Amino acid sequence: MAVGTAATVKALDPIELREMGAQMILSNAYHLHLRPGDELIRDFGGLHSFMGWDGPILTDSGGFQVFSLEGLRTIAEEGVEFRSHIDGSPHSFTPESVMAIERNLGADVIMQFDHVIPGQSDEAAARDASERSLRWLARCVAALERLRGESAGGPPPTTTIPSGAQLSTTNFPLPAPNHPQALFPIVQGGIHASLRVAAASAIRDLGDWPGFGIGGLSVGEAKPDMYRILELLDDELPRDRPRYLMGVGFPEDLVEGVLRGVDLFDCVAPTRMGRNGAAFTSDGRLNIKRAEFRTDPRPLDDACDCTACRRFSRGYIRHLFVADEILGLRLLSLHNVHFLVRLMRDARAAIMDGTIRTWSRDWLARYHSRAPSPE
Amino acid sequence: MAVGTAATVKALDPIELREMGAQMILSNAYHLHLRPGDELIRDFGGLHSFMGWDGPILTDSGGFQVFSLEGLRTIAEEGVEFRSHIDGSPHSFTPESVMAIERNLGADVIMQFDHVIPGQSDEAAARDASERSLRWLARCVAALERLRGESAGGPPPTTTIPSGAQLSTTNFPLPAPNHPQALFPIVQGGIHASLRVAAASAIRDLGDWPGFGIGGLSVGEAKPDMYRILELLDDELPRDRPRYLMGVGFPEDLVEGVLRGVDLFDCVAPTRMGRNGAAFTSDGRLNIKRAEFRTDPRPLDDACDCTACRRFSRGYIRHLFVADEILGLRLLSLHNVHFLVRLMRDARAAIMDGTIRTWSRDWLARYHSRAPSPE
Repeated sequence: MAVGTAATVKALDPIELREMGAQMILSNAYHLHLRPGDELIRDFGGLHSFMGWDGPILTDSGGFQVFSLEGLRTIAEEGVEFRSHIDGSPHSFTPESVMAIERNLGADVIMQFDHVIPGQSDEAAARDASERSLRWLARCVAALERLRGESAGGPPPTTTIPSGAQLSTTNFPLPAPNHPQALFPIVQGGIHASLRVAAASAIRDLGDWPGFGIGGLSVGEAKPDMYRILELLDDELPRDRPRYLMGVGFPEDLVEGVLRGVDLFDCVAPTRMGRNGAAFTSDGRLNIKRAEFRTDPRPLDDACDCTACRRFSRGYIRHLFVADEILGLRLLSLHNVHFLVRLMRDARAAIMDGTIRTWSRDWLARYHSRAPSPE
Repeated sequence: MAVGTAATVKALDPIELREMGAQMILSNAYHLHLRPGDELIRDFGGLHSFMGWDGPILTDSGGFQVFSLEGLRTIAEEGVEFRSHIDGSPHSFTPESVMAIERNLGADVIMQFDHVIPGQSDEAAARDASERSLRWLARCVAALERLRGESAGGPPPTTTIPSGAQLSTTNFPLPAPNHPQALFPIVQGGIHASLRVAAASAIRDLGDWPGFGIGGLSVGEAKPDMYRILELLDDELPRDRPRYLMGVGFPEDLVEGVLRGVDLFDCVAPTRMGRNGAAFTSDGRLNIKRAEFRTDPRPLDDACDCTACRRFSRGYIRHLFVADEILGLRLLSLHNVHFLVRLMRDARAAIMDGTIRTWSRDWLARYHSRAPSPE
């Protein structure tokens, strides 16, 4: 999933995502609740209508963001009180309020509100957070059922806009009363195998889920710990439902995740690194700002068919970065997202024709053959 | 002409310009000489190849930029010595060196190197600059002939790139020896009618020109002075050759210019104002950052068919600006350039069917009916 935290995949137009074959976008309840406000987005007919993306959207619950607000939040069983990173204003998130926010946003897949902890947390802290996440999951389910019941009756909400005209559901249809928002539970438990197994088991007992989030990885733990937990969960979660490894990752992480049964990923890396001048290529990363590219007539990646690689040289894109031109940010962001979309398309094909082991070994060997450029 | 000072129309992709029907791009000898260097661009096959634009390009000579470097330049009959605005390094421009730069860049239309003065200059200063510009025009013609002769013989230039591979004319064809670069003279003379008439007459005597630049307007003088000079030159310059009013302008300036016989314009306004949140509309300018647009479901301009207006609301675009998102800069830049391209297309149609007087009166009345938003 391309990441569109603030209802836009940074530097890109939804049409470009569609053209490169991106299938799904991720956005974020925390960010959109603070700005521009989830009720405003509801009044525009939901996130799809607001941002002009007609494909699937997943919203994260904001758990990760809220718990990252070190020093700006207090945690209780009821929920989390926190201050906005934008203006310091006070807010609180509970499983119930987050479901209302995600309902307003109207994404196709919505994540439960969970308690996220740092990757190196000890077992006691990890157990406490995992068990709280399970209790919050049950509250999310109940809250979502109430919200669905409420929106089934009553008049459609309208909002009055300053000019006096009515912004009503005529122009921007609200999600239908039974808009099939799929709620994904999130398996927590840190790097502790017994906690992960217990969480997966408890979640399975709670219902028949359309898919599963795997949270609390890629948050500072060692890679072998992440791989070990993924291998464990590959056996614990139903094979016929998508597994979503949250916040991961770099190209090599996606390949390693696919090998361990993961279906969905999201990460800001392609756009954030693109804006910093780093391009993913089949031979590893390169930093386009380096002087060596000044006269380089080749595309970023000669194995890539994105619009940046088909039309522009490294020398030109380097010039755009040196001159601080927006087109440079656009082209590298587009190339990097395209690179990951194509990587997953290739991995899917390799799974289908039974060659995923050899395909991934070859891919990783080539990707790691060149040391990353210094950033 | 959309302005692409640094070999990119800011925030836009050449494909977007093509799709909206933009016909021509302007770029700049001063900026490209300093960064990335006109010889580098020559080695990439010229500006068209470097920036991925296959339509016509005009390069300004850098006269305007060099003379704007108040305190950083000294003027003599030979040329101008100046310091780079980027790093303070010393450079000099003469008619001969500027022709070599514009030849390297390979634009279709190249402007002479001229002596530009402030709009309020007195007649003595204006005469001095105008007469120097005429002498420099003769030197430009001679220099260009020499350059054409040189490039007709000798081996094609190559440059060695660090990897050891050769960047040769095989990959990036150089302009053919007789690449038909059209040299436009520039009529100077400030707001002094007699100087303008004398300059136009002297230029006509120097040759059969493919087109004419009108310089030194929109540089601080009053609008009625600009209109008076344009009306004067409308009679002084051949009617069957394009007249290019340099550095102009805003939508209303374009309409006023067309009414006075101008064919070509350039201005940074659509992209610069777009990046600042200002949108041209049929009812005047609006500032998308204003709170009144927060819940506004309408497009920027309901008479516009650009991709921003077809797909996004004012409320969404305002959110993008408030959240400092690049897509906002893209959409307003695109809309504003599209607005001017379409304005000129409509004006051309009105000329062809003989309704330019009523069309322009109606257009200006509607555009001025709404006071510009405070910026």
